[in-house]
Amino acid sequence: MKESSYSKYNKFYEQQRVIIDKKLASALNKREPESLYGPSSYILESSGKRLRPLLVILSAMAVGTKPHKVYNASLSVEMLHNFTLVHDDIMDNADLRRGNLTLHKKYNLNTAILAGDSLLAVAYEYLLKDCYINAQQVICSFTNGLVKVCEGQSLDTEFERQANVTLEEYIDMITKKTAALLQTCCEIGAYLGNGKNNDIKSLSDYGKHLGIAFQIQDDLLDITADKAEFGKRIGGDLLEGKKTFLFLVALDKAVGKDKEDLLKVIKNKGIRSNQIEKYKRLYEKLGVLDESKKAIKKYTQNALRSIDNLSNKSRIEIFYWLADFLIKRNK
Amino acid sequence: MKESSYSKYNKFYEQQRVIIDKKLASALNKREPESLYGPSSYILESSGKRLRPLLVILSAMAVGTKPHKVYNASLSVEMLHNFTLVHDDIMDNADLRRGNLTLHKKYNLNTAILAGDSLLAVAYEYLLKDCYINAQQVICSFTNGLVKVCEGQSLDTEFERQANVTLEEYIDMITKKTAALLQTCCEIGAYLGNGKNNDIKSLSDYGKHLGIAFQIQDDLLDITADKAEFGKRIGGDLLEGKKTFLFLVALDKAVGKDKEDLLKVIKNKGIRSNQIEKYKRLYEKLGVLDESKKAIKKYTQNALRSIDNLSNKSRIEIFYWLADFLIKRNK
Repeated sequence: MKESSYSKYNKFYEQQRVIIDKKLASALNKREPESLYGPSSYILESSGKRLRPLLVILSAMAVGTKPHKVYNASLSVEMLHNFTLVHDDIMDNADLRRGNLTLHKKYNLNTAILAGDSLLAVAYEYLLKDCYINAQQVICSFTNGLVKVCEGQSLDTEFERQANVTLEEYIDMITKKTAALLQTCCEIGAYLGNGKNNDIKSLSDYGKHLGIAFQIQDDLLDITADKAEFGKRIGGDLLEGKKTFLFLVALDKAVGKDKEDLLKVIKNKGIRSNQIEKYKRLYEKLGVLDESKKAIKKYTQNALRSIDNLSNKSRIEIFYWLADFLIKRNK
Repeated sequence: MKESSYSKYNKFYEQQRVIIDKKLASALNKREPESLYGPSSYILESSGKRLRPLLVILSAMAVGTKPHKVYNASLSVEMLHNFTLVHDDIMDNADLRRGNLTLHKKYNLNTAILAGDSLLAVAYEYLLKDCYINAQQVICSFTNGLVKVCEGQSLDTEFERQANVTLEEYIDMITKKTAALLQTCCEIGAYLGNGKNNDIKSLSDYGKHLGIAFQIQDDLLDITADKAEFGKRIGGDLLEGKKTFLFLVALDKAVGKDKEDLLKVIKNKGIRSNQIEKYKRLYEKLGVLDESKKAIKKYTQNALRSIDNLSNKSRIEIFYWLADFLIKRNK
């Protein structure tokens, strides 16, 4: 990709992100009761990559529709995403999110449960605003994404109690927990842009494979990211004893004492913070970080192979840019 | 109403309830993961009045459509209702629901949050199955009901911290928390039956007013019901210091020592269980129970005035039966 294209897409993304941020910040403004929408707005206003709205916008553009036709839908997927964050943070007992206090820490449990619920409710409201065409397919895709997210979150929790989790089971879990919603974003944009079936399929598959790559990268960043930029605790997955992609690969490769050390993480349901460095070194020794990067690359290439089928060839490059941008991210 | 009509409608209701119960019990069967849908199914399988599904069915019939066309939609509103019950029970820290352990007591907090979320997700899925006509209006009405339920629940929580709550504010709260969903049920049935605008309006208003009457009756039953039949603790609202219709009327009417006793409930955020009888006697002395019955009658009559406008006059009587049935209920 030419340097000039790269910076053009970067600029477009920044422009769109400003628009999305602004719309998200004002979406729940003036809505009553403040005791509900204040907390809901708190999470919507915290900065984020806005990857999901971007996917809706890019997918609509890929089939020839202008961004302004799908802004409400793009807000709706970000609201759905934030609904999952609020409830997941409760379940994970997380203190920080994007560098800020999580909603249940900032307010309380009851407020966070209800604020999460209301984000989902308002998400449907916003989605419906843009449903001038293919309404049923759009809402079906959105609902399917939501169902999958719940199933994925439940599997993730199940894995915590399960002694043996295979890499295949893990991929199935993140396909539901993370990739399904990215797939939904692409489908919604494509449907609202009244795209042809093969374009909808290309975009849908792009979103799904990108989502899998994205989640493995998330697992990787948990241990390799810079604390200041990451916005949450480094090594958090290890502290909680989560069976991430990295951990499962490590378990697969380790023998002897290394294996014992890893099994201890499961047995003790996590490690102490002064052990993070030790386990990071173990991951490095076992080649886990390289293996993860390889998997990220593989799923990214699947995504790109799918987007190559897009009928409007001039629209393909920005999806390459996005995949590259996500691989290079540090938070 | 003739005795024969009354028993005919009773019989119809029982038949429909058996069908709905059966469909609810099998709705989440075989869905994976079991760790998610097992708990969600637990609440769906617990017996209930199934008032909301019935309203969808009756409203569809009122505009000339057979029940089987709207069974999925009728399940969807019950699922939405159960989603609110699961999350509300967490917020209220309730132990019992319909005589069974609440979901978070039977399982745990995380499972209950996620099971609630999944009930809402699957609710939309079921609703979409019946959307052969007026899909957008149906989903809008459903979403609007959901938004209102969240707002109402938030107001209800707000009232706990608020020193002064007027009866008007209380009616606004229950209009959102309870009546909006009953209104949605009627609208959905009417839309799916492709009813005329004036019939949709009649049914919608019926649902709304019936919902307000229903909630005041719920407040009344909290103190007058028989424990064995009620399925939850008698006087629970007083124990928690909830500002119910009864409590607000009492506060309005009381003077002197009586008023002080009531203000103590607010100050102490509830009473002890050995004080329930004392407060029940105070309610009786102040005429609160009669006043509540009067209000229930008023809102019920509003509902009936609205349903009188239904164009198919032969369909009106069953809505009278339903209103009467709800007034006479003991749980």
